[in-house]
Amino acid sequence: MNRPSPLPIARTADALRETVRGWRRQGLTVSFVPTMGALHEGHLTLVREAGRRADRVVASVFVNPTQFAAHEDLGTYPRREAEDAELLAAAGCQLLFVPTVEEMYPDGFTTSVSVGGPSQGLETDFRPHFFGGVAVVVAKLLNQVQADVAVFGEKDYQQLLVVRRLARDLDIPTEIVGSPTERDGHGLALSSRNAYLSDDDLARARRLNGVLAEAAVKAADRRPLAAVERAAYAELLKAGFERVDYVAVRRAEDLAVFANGVMDAPARILAAAWLGKTRLIDNMAV
Amino acid sequence: MNRPSPLPIARTADALRETVRGWRRQGLTVSFVPTMGALHEGHLTLVREAGRRADRVVASVFVNPTQFAAHEDLGTYPRREAEDAELLAAAGCQLLFVPTVEEMYPDGFTTSVSVGGPSQGLETDFRPHFFGGVAVVVAKLLNQVQADVAVFGEKDYQQLLVVRRLARDLDIPTEIVGSPTERDGHGLALSSRNAYLSDDDLARARRLNGVLAEAAVKAADRRPLAAVERAAYAELLKAGFERVDYVAVRRAEDLAVFANGVMDAPARILAAAWLGKTRLIDNMAV
Repeated sequence: MNRPSPLPIARTADALRETVRGWRRQGLTVSFVPTMGALHEGHLTLVREAGRRADRVVASVFVNPTQFAAHEDLGTYPRREAEDAELLAAAGCQLLFVPTVEEMYPDGFTTSVSVGGPSQGLETDFRPHFFGGVAVVVAKLLNQVQADVAVFGEKDYQQLLVVRRLARDLDIPTEIVGSPTERDGHGLALSSRNAYLSDDDLARARRLNGVLAEAAVKAADRRPLAAVERAAYAELLKAGFERVDYVAVRRAEDLAVFANGVMDAPARILAAAWLGKTRLIDNMAV
Repeated sequence: MNRPSPLPIARTADALRETVRGWRRQGLTVSFVPTMGALHEGHLTLVREAGRRADRVVASVFVNPTQFAAHEDLGTYPRREAEDAELLAAAGCQLLFVPTVEEMYPDGFTTSVSVGGPSQGLETDFRPHFFGGVAVVVAKLLNQVQADVAVFGEKDYQQLLVVRRLARDLDIPTEIVGSPTERDGHGLALSSRNAYLSDDDLARARRLNGVLAEAAVKAADRRPLAAVERAAYAELLKAGFERVDYVAVRRAEDLAVFANGVMDAPARILAAAWLGKTRLIDNMAV
């Protein structure tokens, strides 16, 4: 039996704009949370933050094909619109935007965006097309919604910096706000991809944040960063991660490498590591 | 003696946005004409068209360094703000936006945009960085002004198609309108670069539109396009152009090459040719 959707769903940019325009005419402010669906408490925190910052909250669910490589999990990425809509409504969202791939990338679509700066290295070393896909879809979504504020999770810290740079460089008139990472009782960053993990893998995954926290203490203690990173890398393998893409301490502001090899400005430690076919990322302030 | 400006000038995006926001609060619609200054009747036609399409007209004057190559005429491109402001006011413009290079490209600016599609070939074969520079500055300007409509000249026909594709692909909520080319009494397309021409060169320049018109008749007659283009190329050299970058008949919609070598859809003929150090472009519907 089909349940009625607990909140209005716009499936085209035109329908979305019509609703937002109506709100604007009433003098209401608007905030926006873009997601790929399969929502968990982390997303709902973003929605509640968006609700504190504006009169009306729009969320989008779009599994963007251009940010997945051919070998990645586009086909199996979890999709569950009805449950997502209920969670969003309960968290204070007033409109769900669920465009089709054809709506976002019609025939003849050819534009690409490269943000440079914070998009270089880290994720890009392992997912070279990722931020290009993110930049285009976020530019589109921000321009479609025309919100006053958009909220992105610090869980994807490099993405947050890329989006902030994108919006600033292209003068997209939406303020980009970062919201702290939600974690489970063991400190594991909430992620839709955690659903892929077996119980054994889940136990291993929960070591990731601890290893980063220990390394952050050493980095803050001005130990040589190469050694700190090397030790954290070894710790992750010891904890049962089968492969570590990177563990890195970078300048928090722009993810630049510390030229002197020690931390001499506010920093962020970031990592990506694998358990079976599941790639987990995490990061925290140092 | 400094004359007072005949219309308000915004030198920052914030000042621009404040004025536009005030108009929006009064329920007024807004149109926009981006220029590089050195205004002539062609620009003023765009401003008048913009005035017919909205309650308030914003024009910008910004000689965008990123669309000039190192050997091009960035340094000598004519600049005359006071005269431009008077012409704009008389043509019905209510606000002039004149950002500095630092305002548009602050330290740390790293984003680039590639439109693909209609930006391929023709101008790009000879000015490879041109449309990349245009795409970024137009995306910025459109997002800064947030107009309902922006008017671009058909004189730069390839640019018009690139901007239209850019706005569509990135969902920039401004309608892109093309306006027909203004010509002098001899059919020469008006251009700020005509100011560089000697009287002798001017006489030669005035042959450009005639050669294109003759070639257009042959193309419309379904003659083989390779031969039509070759003949026009020779005619331009005979008319005194020292070098011809291209003469090409392309599909009007997207500048695609006619695969069958004859015109079988609405077409545009486009050319770029040199007189001394001055490069002239022109185009017309076939």
